[in-house]
Amino acid sequence: MPSQPFAGVLVPVLTPFTASGEPDAGRFVAFCRWLLDQGADGLAIFGTTSEANSMSAGERMELLDRLIASGIPAAKLMPGAGACSVTEAATLIRHAVGHGVGGVLMLPPFFYKGMDDDGLFAFFAGVIDRVGSSALRMFLYHIPPQTVLGLSLDLVGRLIEAYPETVVGLKDSSGDWSNTAALLERFPDFAIFPGSEVFLLDGLRHGAAGCITATGNVNVPGIRKVYENWRTPQADALQAEITLARKTIQAYPMVPALKRIVAHFHADPDWAAVRPPMVKLSEAQSGALLGDLAKIGFTLGEARREAAE
Amino acid sequence: MPSQPFAGVLVPVLTPFTASGEPDAGRFVAFCRWLLDQGADGLAIFGTTSEANSMSAGERMELLDRLIASGIPAAKLMPGAGACSVTEAATLIRHAVGHGVGGVLMLPPFFYKGMDDDGLFAFFAGVIDRVGSSALRMFLYHIPPQTVLGLSLDLVGRLIEAYPETVVGLKDSSGDWSNTAALLERFPDFAIFPGSEVFLLDGLRHGAAGCITATGNVNVPGIRKVYENWRTPQADALQAEITLARKTIQAYPMVPALKRIVAHFHADPDWAAVRPPMVKLSEAQSGALLGDLAKIGFTLGEARREAAE
Repeated sequence: MPSQPFAGVLVPVLTPFTASGEPDAGRFVAFCRWLLDQGADGLAIFGTTSEANSMSAGERMELLDRLIASGIPAAKLMPGAGACSVTEAATLIRHAVGHGVGGVLMLPPFFYKGMDDDGLFAFFAGVIDRVGSSALRMFLYHIPPQTVLGLSLDLVGRLIEAYPETVVGLKDSSGDWSNTAALLERFPDFAIFPGSEVFLLDGLRHGAAGCITATGNVNVPGIRKVYENWRTPQADALQAEITLARKTIQAYPMVPALKRIVAHFHADPDWAAVRPPMVKLSEAQSGALLGDLAKIGFTLGEARREAAE
Repeated sequence: MPSQPFAGVLVPVLTPFTASGEPDAGRFVAFCRWLLDQGADGLAIFGTTSEANSMSAGERMELLDRLIASGIPAAKLMPGAGACSVTEAATLIRHAVGHGVGGVLMLPPFFYKGMDDDGLFAFFAGVIDRVGSSALRMFLYHIPPQTVLGLSLDLVGRLIEAYPETVVGLKDSSGDWSNTAALLERFPDFAIFPGSEVFLLDGLRHGAAGCITATGNVNVPGIRKVYENWRTPQADALQAEITLARKTIQAYPMVPALKRIVAHFHADPDWAAVRPPMVKLSEAQSGALLGDLAKIGFTLGEARREAAE
């Protein structure tokens, strides 16, 4: 069995853009540092929430270079390597592994639809073989709401069997608990992360490694509380709190909403910028979102502030 | 009204790969030359049929460099610039426009789903503005079966209005005649190409500019006959012939089937290679496909051979 590089609460980090739409490395480094300081167990940079596919491969690699140069520990990083071609995915992964990242998160080739398992196996195998590094730890990324191209349990099993030291885990963003439960039952030694904290407590009770969740960008302390206390009598009440926060936020377009929350609580309006095709929240939406959060008593980084008092 | 760089039968050119899976520039150049010799009015290289998204941006630009260096006329080329990021799309397009291509074919940012028209408008506008060239002629690419992210008529109208000299046409691969008909009615001066020759005659009768079709890789002469004779009494019979050929081929996975046909008729077995996640036809499928084609009397490049006799 391979060593597992990650467990706990991982955050698919939002990517800040400047007013002119360029990746903002300075804000990105500061935000990654803040997330780790909040207690994040890992940073799944360049995921869906990161608008990774709105950046070229070169832009992503440069941001990773900047993070490493700034002293963010590579072992805490699980960069996404989303690409539809074996060649681009391999380039991104070689670069990341060269920096010593803990692992990478790998989408299927999402332009394609209705591909069978033989073709998808050949795609992942092609990438792993082309990278050709024993240091690679790959997490598969199952997110059919975005890709409309899922990873079947059989495909996951074939990849684990062919690359037992490399294919070590999976992020399940299907939003379908029955799929997560089936994965947990069939692959007990595999590191499975639900893609939403809504499934965190259920996941932990069935052997999940933690979760990788968009709302981690604004609620690491709350989500960590569930992770730390899942065996205690308070677990269900703590889970209900983070589920309520999640549902409040996801009533709005998720990435623009999260960026608006960061802009508000970090008192940094430029943080709200997104790249097209995403659109910033309107003033009305922003006001409604912040009002909804105030009603449930949501405050950013509360747990750490309490700890510091 | 802008000048229209393309009309007639355009081919989304198959991309040959070597046995080790690398783009095969030599075979690609020869095949492009053969297609033009067969009568293709334009080459929509790097489209869906080209497995363009199975190549990195660098690989695509290098293949285009090789085509140009080999003397293929740039004005005949309509390279696809499929990318989910404004930055990568702009890089691909700047490179293509720098070579003097007739136009480019532009996908929406296909990783995303359920984006509204404001975001999609900002994406296309962002690319056009970033390229910043009056030489750019952009064809929009509506292919919801692959992208699950379509281009509404309103969005098309907004883009034409904002960029009348740049946004000059559209390829409609929806497979939905009612959508093509609605586009033709609403935008009579726009160059609209159905994405299948099945709609060629109906399209021409309603003002379409021609078609851009996968099966053009193996049937330019037949499809050209419909284009040349659409006002004659033979038009419906000619259309029935190419529709039958199309339906025979598309009973199999389209790209592997087309590559298998090219391999057979060009007596070049290596042509059958595909990149993952696509999978080559099995021997049984290949035999059945070639048998089905023999039954309908299909021969590659027949019209030109007749002409030469």
